[in-house]
Amino acid sequence: MTAHAVTTLDTNELREIDAYWRAANYLSVGQIYLLDNPLLAEPLRREHIKPRLLGHWGTTPGLNFLCAHLNRVIKRRDLDLMYVIGPGHGGPAMWANAWLEGTCGEAYPHIGQDVHGIKALFKQFSFPGGVPSHVSPDIPGSIHEGGELGYSLAHAYGAALDNPGLVVACVIGDGEAETGPLATSWHANKFANASRDGAVLPILHLNGYKIANPTLLARMPATELDQLLRGYGYLPYYVEGSEPQAMHQAMAVTLDAALDDISEIKKARVGNRPRWPMIVLRSPKGWTGPAEVDGVPVEGTWRAHQVPLSGVRDNPDHLAQLERWMRSYGPEQLFDVEGRPVDQVRAGAPTGTRRMGATPHANGGALLRPLDLPDFREHAVDVPKPGGSTSEPTRTLGKWLRDVTAANQSEGNFRLFGPDETASNRLDAVYEVTGKQWQEKVLDTDENLTHEGRVVEVLSEHLCQGLLEGYLLTGRHGLFSCYEAFVHIVDSMFNQHAKWLKAAHQLDWRRPIGSLNYLLTSHVWRQDHNGFSHQDPGFIDHAVNKKAEVIRVYLPPDTNTLLSVADHCLRSRDYVNIVVAGKNEQPDWLSMEEAILHNTRGAGIWEWASTDTDGEPDVVLACAGDAPTLEVLAATAMLREHLPELKVRVVNVVDLMRLQPDTEHPHGMTDREFDTLFTPDKPVIFAYHGYPWLIHRLTYRRTNHHNLHVRGYKEEGTTTTPFDMLVVNDMDRFKLCVDVLDRVPGLGPRNARLRQELVDKRTRHHSWIREYGEDMPEVRDWAWPY
Amino acid sequence: MTAHAVTTLDTNELREIDAYWRAANYLSVGQIYLLDNPLLAEPLRREHIKPRLLGHWGTTPGLNFLCAHLNRVIKRRDLDLMYVIGPGHGGPAMWANAWLEGTCGEAYPHIGQDVHGIKALFKQFSFPGGVPSHVSPDIPGSIHEGGELGYSLAHAYGAALDNPGLVVACVIGDGEAETGPLATSWHANKFANASRDGAVLPILHLNGYKIANPTLLARMPATELDQLLRGYGYLPYYVEGSEPQAMHQAMAVTLDAALDDISEIKKARVGNRPRWPMIVLRSPKGWTGPAEVDGVPVEGTWRAHQVPLSGVRDNPDHLAQLERWMRSYGPEQLFDVEGRPVDQVRAGAPTGTRRMGATPHANGGALLRPLDLPDFREHAVDVPKPGGSTSEPTRTLGKWLRDVTAANQSEGNFRLFGPDETASNRLDAVYEVTGKQWQEKVLDTDENLTHEGRVVEVLSEHLCQGLLEGYLLTGRHGLFSCYEAFVHIVDSMFNQHAKWLKAAHQLDWRRPIGSLNYLLTSHVWRQDHNGFSHQDPGFIDHAVNKKAEVIRVYLPPDTNTLLSVADHCLRSRDYVNIVVAGKNEQPDWLSMEEAILHNTRGAGIWEWASTDTDGEPDVVLACAGDAPTLEVLAATAMLREHLPELKVRVVNVVDLMRLQPDTEHPHGMTDREFDTLFTPDKPVIFAYHGYPWLIHRLTYRRTNHHNLHVRGYKEEGTTTTPFDMLVVNDMDRFKLCVDVLDRVPGLGPRNARLRQELVDKRTRHHSWIREYGEDMPEVRDWAWPY
Repeated sequence: MTAHAVTTLDTNELREIDAYWRAANYLSVGQIYLLDNPLLAEPLRREHIKPRLLGHWGTTPGLNFLCAHLNRVIKRRDLDLMYVIGPGHGGPAMWANAWLEGTCGEAYPHIGQDVHGIKALFKQFSFPGGVPSHVSPDIPGSIHEGGELGYSLAHAYGAALDNPGLVVACVIGDGEAETGPLATSWHANKFANASRDGAVLPILHLNGYKIANPTLLARMPATELDQLLRGYGYLPYYVEGSEPQAMHQAMAVTLDAALDDISEIKKARVGNRPRWPMIVLRSPKGWTGPAEVDGVPVEGTWRAHQVPLSGVRDNPDHLAQLERWMRSYGPEQLFDVEGRPVDQVRAGAPTGTRRMGATPHANGGALLRPLDLPDFREHAVDVPKPGGSTSEPTRTLGKWLRDVTAANQSEGNFRLFGPDETASNRLDAVYEVTGKQWQEKVLDTDENLTHEGRVVEVLSEHLCQGLLEGYLLTGRHGLFSCYEAFVHIVDSMFNQHAKWLKAAHQLDWRRPIGSLNYLLTSHVWRQDHNGFSHQDPGFIDHAVNKKAEVIRVYLPPDTNTLLSVADHCLRSRDYVNIVVAGKNEQPDWLSMEEAILHNTRGAGIWEWASTDTDGEPDVVLACAGDAPTLEVLAATAMLREHLPELKVRVVNVVDLMRLQPDTEHPHGMTDREFDTLFTPDKPVIFAYHGYPWLIHRLTYRRTNHHNLHVRGYKEEGTTTTPFDMLVVNDMDRFKLCVDVLDRVPGLGPRNARLRQELVDKRTRHHSWIREYGEDMPEVRDWAWPY
Repeated sequence: MTAHAVTTLDTNELREIDAYWRAANYLSVGQIYLLDNPLLAEPLRREHIKPRLLGHWGTTPGLNFLCAHLNRVIKRRDLDLMYVIGPGHGGPAMWANAWLEGTCGEAYPHIGQDVHGIKALFKQFSFPGGVPSHVSPDIPGSIHEGGELGYSLAHAYGAALDNPGLVVACVIGDGEAETGPLATSWHANKFANASRDGAVLPILHLNGYKIANPTLLARMPATELDQLLRGYGYLPYYVEGSEPQAMHQAMAVTLDAALDDISEIKKARVGNRPRWPMIVLRSPKGWTGPAEVDGVPVEGTWRAHQVPLSGVRDNPDHLAQLERWMRSYGPEQLFDVEGRPVDQVRAGAPTGTRRMGATPHANGGALLRPLDLPDFREHAVDVPKPGGSTSEPTRTLGKWLRDVTAANQSEGNFRLFGPDETASNRLDAVYEVTGKQWQEKVLDTDENLTHEGRVVEVLSEHLCQGLLEGYLLTGRHGLFSCYEAFVHIVDSMFNQHAKWLKAAHQLDWRRPIGSLNYLLTSHVWRQDHNGFSHQDPGFIDHAVNKKAEVIRVYLPPDTNTLLSVADHCLRSRDYVNIVVAGKNEQPDWLSMEEAILHNTRGAGIWEWASTDTDGEPDVVLACAGDAPTLEVLAATAMLREHLPELKVRVVNVVDLMRLQPDTEHPHGMTDREFDTLFTPDKPVIFAYHGYPWLIHRLTYRRTNHHNLHVRGYKEEGTTTTPFDMLVVNDMDRFKLCVDVLDRVPGLGPRNARLRQELVDKRTRHHSWIREYGEDMPEVRDWAWPY
C-alpha cells in the first residue's frame, strides 16, 4: 500500500455515514424476518415473523458498509459511479440502499419511503410472488444477476469499456473469487484503456467463509494474497477490522486514496497499462449480527451465511434476540414515526441520476442508440446462378463488420469479442479499420495490437462472454464469435443472461437492450484439422430450452443469407441470436434479393432446385445449415440425373424456430404453413446441421411428423476430410439418395441397382479418403449442374 | 528462485539428451508433413508430402525438450512420474516420445521401431482415419484430451491425490493459462497433502503466443508473473532462452532443484501447506523450426502456431526449406538404416513401466480395484405402506456414503467432490468418518477440516470436475455432488470426458475406468430460497446428445430407490451416471425390495397406486423424478376419490434411457415393452422432472406418442414454495387432474363441475401462498391415503 494524504471523516460525516449504514442494516434484517411491525413500534410477536425464513445475512452488512461509503465519495466528487455486486445473495443490501436513496419507490410506488413502503419492502423479499434473495433484475441499479457466482468482474469491465467518465465499483465475494471465470477476470486490466474506457475499482470482500467452509483467499497467508493481487497487476489497499468507527475512518481514507489514484491515472494518459488500485475489505461475516446463537459463535463464522436465528417463530429466545439485534441499530433514530428516513440518513445518499439505483448505465436500454448499419447489400456476392460461384461466408461478413465498425467508430458503441479466433474465423477485414485492444508491450512482430481497438481477444470464453454481457447491459452492441464446440464453455452464463432477459422483460422501467449475438463458426462439419473433441453442435439444443420469446437461431446456408441475418441480429433487441455459419469456401445459392426474401420467410421451397412443378412432390428433401444444404442439393442433382421422373421438393430452413408451432414460439409456423411446405403425407428427408433429435423435438406435433427422417451429427468423427465427416455421420449425398429410395414407397425395390451403386460409391469414397487423405475430385469439384 | 547446488550435465549426458530431443523433433516434423520417405533416404519430392498439412508445430519442440529432460530425471532418480500435457495440440510430441520409448509399438505393433513403423507413425497423424492432431486417448501415457484448453492442472492434481509416490509433471500452455478453469486450478495446492498425495510439478511453458496473439502471461512484466505465481503459493524456477546447449544445462539444473525440493517436502511431513516448486520454461514458439518463411519471421512468433511451411507441395522453395529443416536434426545420426533409434537416442528413455507411455497410472483401469461396497440395504428406510413414512433421500444416502468411505479408507480410492455443498446437499454424515481435505490454517470455529479428508470442497465446479476426472482416469472412484442448475458450468468438460470415454472404448489396451458419477440435488423444484436463476434441469438434455453407450440417467423417486441406484453407479465402469434426487423430506414409496426390483426394471407400473385392475386403463399417469412422482400420486388419489370408476394406471420411470427405443440405447425398451406399459392408444399424462420436450425427443417413434402429454419445467419460477413452483409450471396435482379430464374422451364434459372446482382450487392455492408465504395445509400435510 502506498502512502497517501490522510483524510478523515469529521464527526458529522462519521455520524451520517454510520446512520446510513445502520439504517441499511436494519432494513436488511427486516427483509429477512418481518411480515409486519416494520418499525418495531410494538414488541415483536410471532405473527410479525415470516413463515419461511429465507435469505442471506452473511454478506449483507459488508455490502451496506460499502454502499454508504461509495455514496459519500459519489457526493463529494460528483462521481459517475455504478456498483456491481458479486456476492450473489446480497439482495437485502441492494434493496435497502435502493429504498434509502428513493429509487426503489420511483420504480415501485408501493415501496416508497413510509411505513407502508417499508412493510412492502420487507414482505416482498424471498416471499412467494415477491423478489428473490439474490441480486436480480428487479433491483434498480443492478446489471448483474447474483444467482451464479463468478462473473462480476467481467461484467464490470464490460460496463467500463467506452465509458471514459465512469467508475465501476465491483464487489467480489471471496466465495466467487474461487471460481475459474473470476480468477481469470482479474486479467481484464490488460485490455482496459485508461483514457478511452472507464475505471474499474475491484473491492475484494473477504468475509472469510462460504456456505460451510473458509474461503481460500481469506485463509491463505496475507503475504501471498498481496503477491497474488499485485501479480494480477493491481495496487491493493487493505481495510481490515470490525470496530465500526475505526472501519469508517479506514474505508474513507482508502476510498479517497484509490479514487485519487484513478484520477491520476486518467490524467496521465500513460502509454502502457497503469497499475490500477483495488481495495481488500476484510470484515466479519454477518458483521453486527448475533455474535452467538444457542451457545455457538455465529458472527464472523460460516454460520452467519444465511439466517443466523432460524427458530424465531417458535423459539421465544430467538425472537427476543432478533428484537435486540434489530433495536441495536436504533431504528427510532433512523426513521420518523411515519417511516421516513430522518434527514441525517437521507443526507447519506446522492441525488438524481448520481444515485446508484438511478444511474442510466444500469438500465442500458435507456442509453441505447441504434447502430449506424451500412447497407449489407453492398457486400452481396454476385450469384449468376445457384452454385455458380463460391465464397467464404464469414470472410464476406467480416467486410461488412469492418464497415459497421468504421461507421460507429465515433459513437464507440460496437465491439467484437473472441477467444483468439477473430482471424481464424476469417473476420479479419475488421483489422483494416481497427485493432485488438491491448495495453501490454507491443513487439515489432505483433500485428493489429493497439491501445484503442474495437476487438477484444482473450483465450477465455468466459471472459469474452462476461465482457460482452456487461457491454450490452450498459446499452451498447456487440458480437461474440466462437468455435461452435467450445461455446458450451459458457452454457451456464448463457442461461443466466437468458433468464435475466426474461425477468427484465417483465419490468416496465427496464428498457430493451442490444441482443446477445453469437456467431458460431469453425463448426462441426469443418473441424478438419482438429477432430472429435472439437465437434459439438449442441449449443442450439441447450439454448432452445430457454424462453421462446428470447431465443432466435439462424442457419444461413450461404454468404448472402448470412449477411442479411447479421444485419437483422444487430438491429434486434432483447434476444439471444445464435448464428451458425461456415468460414470455408462454399457455393453461393441465393442472390441478395433472394436471400432477403428467404430470410424474411425463414424457411421456404427452393423452386430452382425442385422438380415438383405441379406442387405435388414425391419426396421432400429439407436442409438447415450450410453443409447439409450442399449435400441435399448434391443429392437432388443425382436424383434428377438418375430418376428424372421423381418429383423432389427442396426446402431450406434458415430460421430454425420456424419449425416450432406458432403457439410455442413467436416465429413458429402455423400447421397449415408447415403442411404447405412439408406436405401432410410425403416422406421428408431432413439434413440438419446439428444433433438430429432436435428437429423431432421441434416438429413432433406436426401432421407429417411420422414421415420425417432426420440426418445430422451423431457423435462420429475424427481428423478427416469434410466429406468423410458426412459419410461417418450418414449425411452424405449418397446416403441421402439411399434414404429417398428407401422412404418413397416402392422406389427402392424398383431401383435396386441404383441403390447398390450408391451404397458402393459411399464405401469407395470413404476408403479412398482414408487411403489418399483427401476427398475424391468428384466430390471436391462438384457444382450444381442445372 | 532459491540457490541450489549446481549440477550440470557431462558431455555424454548432454549429447544423449540433445540426440533424444532432435530425434523427437524430427519425428514430430515428419508427422506433420510426410507420407513417405520417412528417413529422407532420398531427396524430398512432392509425392512424399501429405495432401492436407494439418498439425501444430509451435508448442511441439518445447514439449519434446521437456520429455527428454523428464526422462533423464526418471532414470536418474527412478521416479514414478507421469506427464500431463496442457497444450492441446502437442500431439506430435507425445507420439514421437511414445515411439522413441517403444510404448507406441507395444500398443500398436504396426508402429514399431523400424522404417515401416516410422512411416505408419507419420501417415496416421492428422490423416483421415488416423489420429487427431491433439493429445488424445490413442496416445499411450495420456490421461488428458488436448481438445479443449484449461483442465490440465486440475487433472494433474486429481491424478496425484492418494498416490503418495507419484510425481505428476504438468505442462501448462500459456494460451490455456488464460482460461478461467486453469486460472483457479493453481489453488489446488491448498488441498494437496504432502504425505498422503503425490506431488504436482507445474511447468508453465511460455512460448509467447496463441493462434494470433501474444499470451498474457508471457507478455506481462516478469516481476508481475513472479508475484502471481508466488501469490498462488508456488516457488517458481525459471529456464529461459533458445540456445540448446545452455538450455539443456539450465533445465537439468532446474529439474534437479525442483525435484530436490519435492523430496524435502515429502520428507518433512510439514503441518501446513508447503511451498511447492514449479518451473517456468520460456522458449521460442516453433523452436528449431524455420526462422523465416517467405521473408517474414516465423520461429518465435504466432506464425509458428500451426504449419510453418504451408505450401510444401506446390512451392519448391518451401519443399527445399522443409528438407533443410528436417536434415538439421541429423536423422542419419539418430536412426540406423532400418529406422531403429541408435543406442544414444534409445538410452535417453527409461525402461519398463517407468516410461511415461507405460505408466499404469495413465491407463487407470489397469490399476482399478472395485470398491468395497457395504450393503446399501442396511440403510433402507422402513416403508410400512407407500407414503406411510417420510425421509430425506440424500441424507440417507449420506449415511451409506459414510460407510463406503469408511470401508475404503485404507485403500484410499474413493472421494467426494463438491462446490461447498456437501453439507447443504445433506451428505454430511460422511464427516463422521472423514473430513474435508485442507492444508491452510484451521481455526477453532472451523468444522470438519483436516489434512487428510476424503472430501474435497472448493467453490469451483470446474475444479471439482477436473479433480474427479483426473482421479477416475488414474483408476479410482468418486462422486461429484452439485446443485442441479450449476452443473451446466461444466457442460463442456462433461462433453470432453464423454468423448474421451467413447474414444477410449475403441482401444483394446485401455482398461475400463470408474464411471463419472453426478449427484444433482437442490434441484429445480426445491430452490425455495434461491429462485429463478437457480432453476435449470437441462443438464440431462445436454448429456443425452452424447453417445448412448456412455450415458445413464436416473431419477429415483424416493430414498430406497436412490440408495439402490447409487450402489449400481459405484459398481459401474466407463459411464457417465447422472442421478437427480431431492434432499428435502418427502414421502417414501417403495420398500427396499420393491425399490431394487423397480430399479432393475428401470420403469414399471405401480400397481398399488393404479386402479386398472383388469389391465386396461382409461388413462396412464406417468412420472419421472421425485417431485413429479408425488404430484402424480396426489392427482391419482384425487381421481380415485372423485371418479372412482376411472381406471388409472401409474407408471414410474427411474432409468430415463428406458424410454428410448432399444435400437437407440442399450437400456431402451422394445416397442412391445413400451406399449405394454404406456398402452398403444390411451392418453398418457407424463409428469417429468425437467424440460418436457426431452420426453418427446426420447419417445417420438413410439406407437402411442401422439397421445403423450408431458408436463415439466418451462422456465417459470421465482423464490416461492415448492407447491407454487408446480403451479406456475402447470405440473401441480390439480392441473394433472384437469389434464386427465381434458384428455380422456368425454370425461371433461361429463364432469364439468369437478373440472371447474379443480381450476378454482389451484387458483386459490396460488393466491393463498402469495398472501401467506407458505403452502396450504391441505397440500403441505398431504399423504397417500390408500
